[in-house]
Formats: sequence, structure tokens, C-alpha cells
Amino acid sequence: MPPDTRSVKPLPTLALAMGDPAGIGAELIAKVLVLPEVLAAADLVVIGDRRVLEAGAEIAGVPVDVDLRHDFSDLSPRGRPIFVDLGHLDPATVKRAVAAREGGAFALANFRAALELAAAGRADAVVFAPFNKFAMRAAHPAYDDEIGYSAEVLGMAGPASEFNILGGLWNARVTSHLPFADVASRITRDAVLQAIRLTDRAMRDAGIAIPRIAVAGLNPHAGDGGNFGREEIDAIGPAVEDARREGVNALGPFPADTVFLRARNGALDAVVTMYHDQGQIAMKLMGFERGVTLLGGFPFPISTPAHGTAYDIAGQGIAHTGATLAAIFLATKFGAARRRAPRVPQTAAARSADNVNSGGVTPC
Amino acid sequence: MPPDTRSVKPLPTLALAMGDPAGIGAELIAKVLVLPEVLAAADLVVIGDRRVLEAGAEIAGVPVDVDLRHDFSDLSPRGRPIFVDLGHLDPATVKRAVAAREGGAFALANFRAALELAAAGRADAVVFAPFNKFAMRAAHPAYDDEIGYSAEVLGMAGPASEFNILGGLWNARVTSHLPFADVASRITRDAVLQAIRLTDRAMRDAGIAIPRIAVAGLNPHAGDGGNFGREEIDAIGPAVEDARREGVNALGPFPADTVFLRARNGALDAVVTMYHDQGQIAMKLMGFERGVTLLGGFPFPISTPAHGTAYDIAGQGIAHTGATLAAIFLATKFGAARRRAPRVPQTAAARSADNVNSGGVTPC
Repeated sequence: MPPDTRSVKPLPTLALAMGDPAGIGAELIAKVLVLPEVLAAADLVVIGDRRVLEAGAEIAGVPVDVDLRHDFSDLSPRGRPIFVDLGHLDPATVKRAVAAREGGAFALANFRAALELAAAGRADAVVFAPFNKFAMRAAHPAYDDEIGYSAEVLGMAGPASEFNILGGLWNARVTSHLPFADVASRITRDAVLQAIRLTDRAMRDAGIAIPRIAVAGLNPHAGDGGNFGREEIDAIGPAVEDARREGVNALGPFPADTVFLRARNGALDAVVTMYHDQGQIAMKLMGFERGVTLLGGFPFPISTPAHGTAYDIAGQGIAHTGATLAAIFLATKFGAARRRAPRVPQTAAARSADNVNSGGVTPC
Repeated sequence: MPPDTRSVKPLPTLALAMGDPAGIGAELIAKVLVLPEVLAAADLVVIGDRRVLEAGAEIAGVPVDVDLRHDFSDLSPRGRPIFVDLGHLDPATVKRAVAAREGGAFALANFRAALELAAAGRADAVVFAPFNKFAMRAAHPAYDDEIGYSAEVLGMAGPASEFNILGGLWNARVTSHLPFADVASRITRDAVLQAIRLTDRAMRDAGIAIPRIAVAGLNPHAGDGGNFGREEIDAIGPAVEDARREGVNALGPFPADTVFLRARNGALDAVVTMYHDQGQIAMKLMGFERGVTLLGGFPFPISTPAHGTAYDIAGQGIAHTGATLAAIFLATKFGAARRRAPRVPQTAAARSADNVNSGGVTPC
């Protein structure tokens, strides 16, 4: 890297949205806000209700030391994390470990405000503490998932995708939350190609020059030459070849039960998996407490810890901050990379892919 | 455990069959035969060709120190491993890293002899070095897998199953080498129940009193209450309940992407998975170099390292002995347990299950 010739390099600005108030989110945010490495990484704008943060800090046994503001008019940093107190939730109205409409409305309002800040160019990246899907749906019946909601708020219609990231390793999937019995019919050449393209594009956006993207097979032993299924021959292999012709460093298909061993050894930057558990089994085993979920395909990084609201341990002060810290550092780093090199216009090939829908590669 | 009041406890006898001669098997056997902990664990009867063993020892850089015999008439131990030289393969006739009929015939003859020794009560357990399936089929066109061949040699017709074992954790599967698209239709209440029963029976045979057997779901998030598939509700959950009514400590269904985290923490003794990669992704990540495959449902333990012939590194002397050692210690331990407490006659419930066939729970 060339030496930085500027005397003071401005920090990226991170909008950090409080999540579901019945879970571990407030404890986690209170814990990370007092860490010097977090304050050194970004100018933070935390969005929520001061009372919820204070309740979290009490559970976590940490002090609250924020620069309290009541609206978004002035977000100029003055050394401490800015906390925008929307005053919209008294924590006494939400029962711990219970999904409630009020909690969903709180999390949604914080997330929407964070997205709008970033869309307006006032933040470089968004991180949100875990949501509870039932609470979100109670508050907003049209709520499907974070990708759909982000697209709704941002008025976007392009393809977007969810990535799981552990250290330097990315995992994308062709299908996600659908019945196992429906997976095989969705493994088409187009669907696999689109997932590879989205992975490549999102990784380049994040500053990774030529990501090495491995593609998993679907069948045991990647089909063993057609003995146990033909998707590798008919769909996945051809999609890898298509991607390579477009300049993507795609490799495979690899047997699913060894591809993560190669990845763990550092030989790969990403694994595109065919279905939910194919990647999740591996990623959770390799680092359950450090995994980050990144929403790709948006004009700025949006990330969250890969774990959930953890109602079973909420209020005990024992929640592990590893994944929250990883989400903050990753969003900050990728947000800074994006600011230095804004997204180039999509290629014709990538545009044509926008009309292809597939399971987990959620079209917005 | 009560103190051992016998002055000299006889060691179990282990029949160790040399495997495919084009892979790493001979190197591995040569390496482990000189380890004091192996000699202390069992009276070994190694079956193969002396010339193949010597070639392996040369690659491995270890001496050959065996008690050479030329038939099975006298197998009384005299301190060193017995090596029964069948004189049936000159290693010069087999090219390294090439699957060949001669190699398959060699491995089959050794394995058959080991099985027959154990069936005759002259060995307590069988271990075999890795086979190459193409070579086996070239030598014996009816060869399907190790379970089918063992059943053929032993004249058995009951249900048998393959288990993957890592440390104290067992993994069984309901389906195995079949196309992904065919898996869901095989996940029936009967098939899952049979897999749970076979796991419980094999673990009790191995001396584990009340194994805690977790059962994985099939769909993402174990179906999320029916949102992403109903197999957990219609087949897997009822099978777990059936098993519990029979006195099996079965638990679940659990989401596949976290059940191995629980297992790794020591909370479970076994995981029954629904398909090949569901278990293999996890087991290989947790210990690729230590995994053992055990054939259950036979009158004595039959085990092998979970890795294959590793043609890519054969002849370099770098093959890791971890899984071979684990296979030897596991077979020895389980063989001794079986000798102390021979298999009790099957229950009526277990007998009725013998008529139910399912993918990976290969019927013999």
C-alpha cells in the first residue's frame, strides 16, 4: 500500500441501528461502544432509544458514554459515538425474550433511518443488531427479510444477495429458505451463474481485486461423474465455465464435503453453495461466534452479526461480541473501499442476469 | 471400572487387511506396525503380500519387523505383529496411483481372509486399509461397497450401516450415495426410525450404555415449523418419538447447521443425518485426518480410515497415520467390548425393522 500522504485520514461513518429490544442486541451495542478499537475504526452514529441502550449497558455492566442527539440535523463527530435518541421505545413496554410488535417497530425505525443516512451519503455503511422476524412481521406485515426491506426503503430493483463471511471467507448460496425437496429443481445454469456473478461483483465492490470463487456441487461426491445425479454436469459445471468466460475466477464444481477444507486452508476467497445448510453447517462450525451476514447488491455495505437475537441468553450479560465487532469492522472496511472506488456501471451481461430469479439470491 | 484381578489380560486380536496397493495403504500400515502403542493395544494379524509391505516401509522410511507366516494355521502371538504373506501380488505389477484389477483382487483377498478369521472367532475385529472402488469392481463385478461385500462373505442378510466416527462422536445417515433430488422422498418415518435403531444397537454393541442420539432435520432451520418443508413434522419427529418409546435416547429433530456444534461440545454421542453431505461436511471439517468409518450390524467391528487411497500423495511418505490409528484403536476397543458382552438376540421391534430398506442404511 502506498504511504498515506494526508495528515489526517477521515474515518468512515458507520450508521449502527439497534435491533430487536427483547434479545441481546442492546447489551452487545453497549459493550462495543466502549471499545477503543471500535471508536478508532469509524465515526459511529448509533440509532435507537437512549433508555434501551441504558438498559443494555446495565445488563452488560458497562458505562454509557455517548454524544446524545435527538435528530439527524447535525452528525458532525466530536470524539465520542453519536447516539441519535428517537425516544420511541420505553424498554419497560417490551418483555425480555418475547417477540413483540413494539420491538419490531423499534428495530424497523432504526434500520430505516440508518439506510436513509447511508443513501443520502451521510454514512458509508450500515450495521444492524439482530432482528426477530416475527416481531418485524407484526410491525410491518409486508416484511419478508432484510434484503427485501432494504430494497423497499432504497427504492431498488436490482438483484441483491446475502453473504455469510468469516474472516476472509465469503459464502453465498443459490437457494436459501425453501424446502429441501424444492432445491434440486432450482439448480439451473442461470441461477448458479447469477449467484457466481453477484458474489464476484460484491467482492470486487468490497475491494477484493480478483476473488477466487469455488462453486460447490449439489450431489454427494459432486455427483461422482454422473453416478449420483447430473446437476454438476448439466448446470453447475457449465455455469462455472460461463462465469470464467466473463472474467470471473470461478472454480469447480467441488464436492461439498471437502470444499470448505480447501477454503479454510486459505486457497479460496468464496464458496458458492447450492442450498442453505450446505454452507451454514460449515460456516457455523468454523466460527459460530464470529460470523457476519452481509447484504450485497446495495450501494453501500449493510452487515449484521450472523447469529440471531439469542432470546435464550438475553439479559444475562454473557452475549459474545465477536460477531458484532466483525460486522462493524467489515462494514467499515468495505464502506471505505466503496468510497474510494464507487461501483462502476453494470456490464450488459450482469444487467441481463437481473431478470433471472433464484431462491436465495433474492431479487429486490 | 472394577480393578482387573487377572494377572495377564489377553489382548484382543485384530485382523488388519492391506488395501489398494496403488495408494497410501502400504505406507500407512508399515508406519503403524512399528508403533509401540499399536503393539500394546492388540495382537495383530496383518494380511497381504510381504513385498507390498516392504515397498510401503521403504516409502515410509521405517523398518519391517514382523513375525512372517505363510498361512493361517498357527496365529499364536509371539510378541511381534504376525504378517500372513499370501504371496499374491508383486508390487512391480501395479502402477502407483492407478486403479487396477490386480490391486482390487489383492485388497479383496486380504479383506475376505480377515473377515473369515473374525467370523471363525480367531480375531475380535477387522480393520482394512483404503480400497479403490474402481479396482474392486474390476476384480469383482458384483462388488458394490464394503457393507455388501462383507455381507456376501459372511452370508448375512440383516440390516447393516456405515458410521463415521470422530473421537467419541458417531454419525449415521438415512440416505447416502444417491442423487440429491431423490433424498427427500426417502425420508420416511420408517427409514429414519431404522437408522436411529441401527445407531443405538451398534453403539450399545460397542459398549456405550445409553447413547444420546441426536437426529438432524432435513430442511433449513429444521423446517421452521413447516414453513420450509414438512419432513420434520411428518416423518423425522414421529420417528424420534417412536424410538423413544422403544427406549432409545433419541433427541430432535435439530437444525442441521447447529446440531454439530452441540455434538462438538460433548452434549451428544451421535448425530443421525438425513443425507451424505449433511454429516460429511461437518465430520470432515471437525477432523478430516482422524475420521474412522465403522461398519455396524456385523457380529464384530469392521473399521477403516474415513479417508481414501489418496492417490495424489501416494509414494511420498507423507500420508498421515491419524485415521488409521483411530480405526485400529476403535476396532480393538469395540471388539474387546463385544467379546465381553456378545450381542443379545434382536428384539421383535428390531427384527421387524430388518425388512425396511433405506438408502445409506444399506440392507445386506
